[in-house]
Amino acid sequence: MHLGMSTLLQAVEACGIVAFACSGFIEARRKQMDMVGVYTVAFITAFGGGTLRDILLDRRPLFWVEHQEYALLIFGLALLSIPFLRHLRSSLAEKIIIVADAFGLGLFSAVGTSLARDAQMPTFVCVMMGVITGIFGGVLRDVICNEIPLVFRRGHLYATCAFAGCWLYLILDWLHAPQAVAIIASILLTSSMRMLAVRLDLKLPD
Amino acid sequence: MHLGMSTLLQAVEACGIVAFACSGFIEARRKQMDMVGVYTVAFITAFGGGTLRDILLDRRPLFWVEHQEYALLIFGLALLSIPFLRHLRSSLAEKIIIVADAFGLGLFSAVGTSLARDAQMPTFVCVMMGVITGIFGGVLRDVICNEIPLVFRRGHLYATCAFAGCWLYLILDWLHAPQAVAIIASILLTSSMRMLAVRLDLKLPD
Amino acid sequence: MHLGMSTLLQAVEACGIVAFACSGFIEARRKQMDMVGVYTVAFITAFGGGTLRDILLDRRPLFWVEHQEYALLIFGLALLSIPFLRHLRSSLAEKIIIVADAFGLGLFSAVGTSLARDAQMPTFVCVMMGVITGIFGGVLRDVICNEIPLVFRRGHLYATCAFAGCWLYLILDWLHAPQAVAIIASILLTSSMRMLAVRLDLKLPD
Repeated sequence: MHLGMSTLLQAVEACGIVAFACSGFIEARRKQMDMVGVYTVAFITAFGGGTLRDILLDRRPLFWVEHQEYALLIFGLALLSIPFLRHLRSSLAEKIIIVADAFGLGLFSAVGTSLARDAQMPTFVCVMMGVITGIFGGVLRDVICNEIPLVFRRGHLYATCAFAGCWLYLILDWLHAPQAVAIIASILLTSSMRMLAVRLDLKLPD
Repeated sequence: MHLGMSTLLQAVEACGIVAFACSGFIEARRKQMDMVGVYTVAFITAFGGGTLRDILLDRRPLFWVEHQEYALLIFGLALLSIPFLRHLRSSLAEKIIIVADAFGLGLFSAVGTSLARDAQMPTFVCVMMGVITGIFGGVLRDVICNEIPLVFRRGHLYATCAFAGCWLYLILDWLHAPQAVAIIASILLTSSMRMLAVRLDLKLPD
Repeated sequence: MHLGMSTLLQAVEACGIVAFACSGFIEARRKQMDMVGVYTVAFITAFGGGTLRDILLDRRPLFWVEHQEYALLIFGLALLSIPFLRHLRSSLAEKIIIVADAFGLGLFSAVGTSLARDAQMPTFVCVMMGVITGIFGGVLRDVICNEIPLVFRRGHLYATCAFAGCWLYLILDWLHAPQAVAIIASILLTSSMRMLAVRLDLKLPD
């Protein structure tokens, strides 16, 4: 992996972390958790997917261990956002969660696929690694909040969007597109497909 | 580990994957999940136990990474089984889950114990590795579907069967029985004990 | 790490295991689980945090694999405690859980921080490793029993105590205090703060 690509992946990862942390903040506040609860749920949502990916690919040090500024970033965001969250209207909160979550899904799925590709995993495994990286933080968030994970409930087209985005990345990679192009295209496909699905109430057949 | 034994273990593992995937398909359908939900739950049920085992034993590449055909197999089964599952009567579904789950439990427990033995783990740890490999996929399935895991509810004799099967494997191994014999005996003991317990409504004392 | 320190850490770890196992026994009994369920929940509560820590730090063999006597200890305790637990009054059970859990939290947080420090992790990551090691066993226990984890519910000051204890360890370590002193001070701070919080019904601001 070249240095430039590695930097790109890190920038994308940092954005995904912030996006997922926001969805964690809001969800935890709705469950009436206190400050530490809010921070911990945000931490788990933001780092869950990437940590599982690093464990499955046996990459060490873990990405948030190597970059402690990520954990500090979430900590700072938690302190800043708590007073703000108290005044957030519920309908707006819902919308922010959906948009933040859609971007987090796209960003992490693309990075996950890309890292699995770099580790020379077989094609279908790369796709599954991307999907797992993308969805797992949200799954942990929902399991901890004692709900059936969003991603498994009907009519959300959630994992399906990540699945499509991961394939797009691999196809572009196979066509020798520059990695930056492949990653950005994959993120855009996953996020916009997810937001469209929510907007238009698209559902998969049973 | 000899090549022949390794092949045997893989064949047993593949059967266990299919058995657990079936139980995952049916459980997810009962929760009204869509196609992707069904596939993902089946995937997690089928690979959860073995993945945890590989992580705990630090074996890499993971078994489903090395053999992407496993993940493709579940994908194909999901596509094939969805229309079929729609017409499945609920009482029959219940029975299929119990039989498939009993075989999956036996198959994975035996493989888990055997791999831990090959990695020269101490005896009691081998047993716990076998039990964890056997039960963990089902635990994840139930946690994701937001239920108290089957294995921890009363009167199911679930982990107990895996426990007995793992000890049988180790005893036969200690008596220098051929590995194939030890594995098949262990699978038969675990699965038949589990099916008998359900049939005869056997319970452990409180 | 010197041999003496390693022995100290192991002794502390063993105490934490027993404390958490007790909380697991009692919680599982309240959910009407049978003998194997009680053992398994205690096992997961006692080893969950340390196992996650070892996986995140990539330490192998895992602490309970290297010391199979730990797993046997829980097994023996389960056999011994079952008849005793049947006659335990509910109000007393509640108190034992809180005290055992407070000590487990303190013991595991201190060991987790200390091991992360030895592995030369950056400061904030050491704190998070300590907190994760301390709380994760209890989180798994509650997720398996299908409840919102204790640690995330309001007004418990749970992770906050571990957080304070981990910082104390690092500050004493930075002041070149002997490791034994730092560990014991950290354990005392975490446990007594947690028990005080429950006693005085202390809460964090929203």
